[in-house]
Amino acid sequence: MAEEQDINQTAELMLALDAADGSAALAAAKELHYADLAAVYEDLNDEQRDFLLKTIGPELATDLIADLPENLIEGALDHFKPAQLRVLLTNLSDDDRVDVFQVVDKKDQARYFSLLGPRDQELTRNLLKYEEDTAGGRMTTRMGRLRVDMTVKQAIEALRRAEDDTETLARIFVIDEEGRLVGKTRLRDLAFNTWDTPIRDIMNEADEFILATADQEEAARQLAKYDIPLLPVVDEFHHLLGVLTYDDALEIVEEESTEDIEKLAAIAGEQTEMSYLNTSSTLHYKRRVVWLIGLAFVNIISGYVMFRFSSVLERAFVLSLFLPMVVAAGGNSGGQASTMVIRAMALGEISPGNILRIMIKEARAGLFLGLSLGITIAVFITLILPSMQPSTGAHFDFFHLAIAVSTALTVQVFSSTVLGAMLPLFARSIRLDPAVVSSPSLASIVDVTGMLIYFTIAAAILQLH
Amino acid sequence: MAEEQDINQTAELMLALDAADGSAALAAAKELHYADLAAVYEDLNDEQRDFLLKTIGPELATDLIADLPENLIEGALDHFKPAQLRVLLTNLSDDDRVDVFQVVDKKDQARYFSLLGPRDQELTRNLLKYEEDTAGGRMTTRMGRLRVDMTVKQAIEALRRAEDDTETLARIFVIDEEGRLVGKTRLRDLAFNTWDTPIRDIMNEADEFILATADQEEAARQLAKYDIPLLPVVDEFHHLLGVLTYDDALEIVEEESTEDIEKLAAIAGEQTEMSYLNTSSTLHYKRRVVWLIGLAFVNIISGYVMFRFSSVLERAFVLSLFLPMVVAAGGNSGGQASTMVIRAMALGEISPGNILRIMIKEARAGLFLGLSLGITIAVFITLILPSMQPSTGAHFDFFHLAIAVSTALTVQVFSSTVLGAMLPLFARSIRLDPAVVSSPSLASIVDVTGMLIYFTIAAAILQLH
Repeated sequence: MAEEQDINQTAELMLALDAADGSAALAAAKELHYADLAAVYEDLNDEQRDFLLKTIGPELATDLIADLPENLIEGALDHFKPAQLRVLLTNLSDDDRVDVFQVVDKKDQARYFSLLGPRDQELTRNLLKYEEDTAGGRMTTRMGRLRVDMTVKQAIEALRRAEDDTETLARIFVIDEEGRLVGKTRLRDLAFNTWDTPIRDIMNEADEFILATADQEEAARQLAKYDIPLLPVVDEFHHLLGVLTYDDALEIVEEESTEDIEKLAAIAGEQTEMSYLNTSSTLHYKRRVVWLIGLAFVNIISGYVMFRFSSVLERAFVLSLFLPMVVAAGGNSGGQASTMVIRAMALGEISPGNILRIMIKEARAGLFLGLSLGITIAVFITLILPSMQPSTGAHFDFFHLAIAVSTALTVQVFSSTVLGAMLPLFARSIRLDPAVVSSPSLASIVDVTGMLIYFTIAAAILQLH
Repeated sequence: MAEEQDINQTAELMLALDAADGSAALAAAKELHYADLAAVYEDLNDEQRDFLLKTIGPELATDLIADLPENLIEGALDHFKPAQLRVLLTNLSDDDRVDVFQVVDKKDQARYFSLLGPRDQELTRNLLKYEEDTAGGRMTTRMGRLRVDMTVKQAIEALRRAEDDTETLARIFVIDEEGRLVGKTRLRDLAFNTWDTPIRDIMNEADEFILATADQEEAARQLAKYDIPLLPVVDEFHHLLGVLTYDDALEIVEEESTEDIEKLAAIAGEQTEMSYLNTSSTLHYKRRVVWLIGLAFVNIISGYVMFRFSSVLERAFVLSLFLPMVVAAGGNSGGQASTMVIRAMALGEISPGNILRIMIKEARAGLFLGLSLGITIAVFITLILPSMQPSTGAHFDFFHLAIAVSTALTVQVFSSTVLGAMLPLFARSIRLDPAVVSSPSLASIVDVTGMLIYFTIAAAILQLH
């Protein structure tokens, strides 16, 4: 319902932009949520973007620009004159401003910096110290902060005075005279208590907090696990520096999931914030081509194994009927195992001490899976294949063929499952992202082992030497 | 840092459980966050679970049970006597209680129901009307709710009285005399204004809301897009029924991402809430075996194509060197394309009207990718392969071989990329989840086309008929 309304307003804005009708465009833009406005902006051409930004001016453009994908930010800022830019950059919340500074080039960074007031300059400089993907790099400093020696009356006064500089009061943090985090409280505890109550009496221990240098994923996981709206960010002396909010956590979880999904499909590079449709074909190409070429050369090794076993194949061409199956079963079962392990690691369910348990679990699953597949195919070969014999034209000992194919299939599924589970663990032990063990790369590796297993076992059982 | 502390407390609890030391276990359990307590519980054996639950009693067990994976809830409740169960079920928040009722069997549901007071019975019955994966099925009714004709003083009084029944005051919703949603405000707007201010003057329009019957994924997306802590849930007459919270959204996003990742790797069935390690090998086996067997039979079709072209392969066994590469390149490039499209759909970036744009984008990317691979391999065959000739033992026209392999590779990558992008769109158009187009199933399909493309083109160019 809210969505339908947005679609109408979006359509109105588009019409106004097409007609270059400034006042209608401004009216429509004012009605839209900045997230919807940003989505519209992404779909515009350069001329329309210029018209829209000039029409709405720096105040309205502030939230729009904060919500744009990284690669559009610099271009959007270029539409404004220095005086407008000063307004826009000053209006940005501290964490969004840091995001902007992180994506523009050095020259622009210096120019933008000079437009800020001394207080904002210092704040921005402090936040820029932290890497983009750390808790410090994503935090906002615009949270509620009270001294432990205040009363409720003083606290409400302090929060009221600071209101314009406060993004969220979902939790209010209590600090001592040195600025160290000593507790947390809620606005309702202030509003529902008498004015002379000391803050000390209505605060709780701040059990959950994170170091500014910690990984953003770790911070998001903590927010999700403990169901808290804000996670305080501290330095090594426990000084309160800022907070990470639930909406940061949502963004981080979505970004990291997309990244893992793309890596699992052998798509390279940083996930772009651009939507699929607004990513150029060239960028789509670049993120995929390196892996495809790399994998192609690994696949030539499989081809080489096949080539070396040509004599086996020539003597029993019926083996080709099951070659793709045995080979692919390794990639499929290995991919299942590696995906399960990689996702469990991403969700923080697995620690290095669990390797033995994982190995046992996957070895059991792999054995059952291998036997199930082997038996199914053995039944198929002995009972169903003979009746299809005229079309295949093969004269063959179906019993021994069934034993050969089934044995190879069982060995291939078992070994691929165990390998698929182990490789991500190994990757992490040498400090690589487990998700680099993409399903295609795992499949390419077990293609080689599959060829070796199949031809070796078939040659032995069918005596094709 | 918070984590380290938890690990110590967890260790203390485990020691107390091993020693069957009730008072030490209770003390340790009280120190732990319920999320950590639930994680410990998952790892215990039956005897230890019984001891822990009896030791901590129904009050402390309430939050623990609310945080357990679905399949452990019924077992945990069985440890309590009716009087204790009454305490526990009454203490549960309304949305957690509904979750419990949704997972226990019918008989237990009726028994639990009879333990509740009349008000909780009615509330639970109302919430159970909505499907588990809808906004209504996940909402809580424990939010701040004010009448539009109140003053700030009346409002604060009303919220204070209802405090024990309020999970969150991150946003406070304003209703009219009929219970229809008319606006929203914040506790700070109450706290920072004079007591005689009418609520009407300090409320904003509630632009974002969702129907109780809407998909939970849609609700989570709206929370994320608009950066709001609470999304009001309404019925078709715009009556305010409840709210969805940011922590619901985080959970939904994680669940849905895991589900998509698992489907992409051809892992069947509902994602369990159990962690990887606490899922039995048998369940791991069940979720994987059906796909593996199904895919195996598709792969036999590839084998059949290979078998039919045995005469081509026999005349030029050197073709086997590049057969796995051409075939696998289709699965790899198709998997990349389908993954990109499936993720874009999951994030709501693609609508049915975009099909043509996607097709053009992927056709271009596929063509460039195919040409890049084709040219790379052609260079490899003409420049590098001849120098390796003694080991391959092949006497061959490398120039024509290069043309044949490269052409087949280009056609295979191009067609697989387009097919990979189209299949998820097609799945959605017939109302299937796009993520059912798993990478392994796509790979199995393009294995067949790859075999056909490779042998047909090679036979034509190398004149092997």
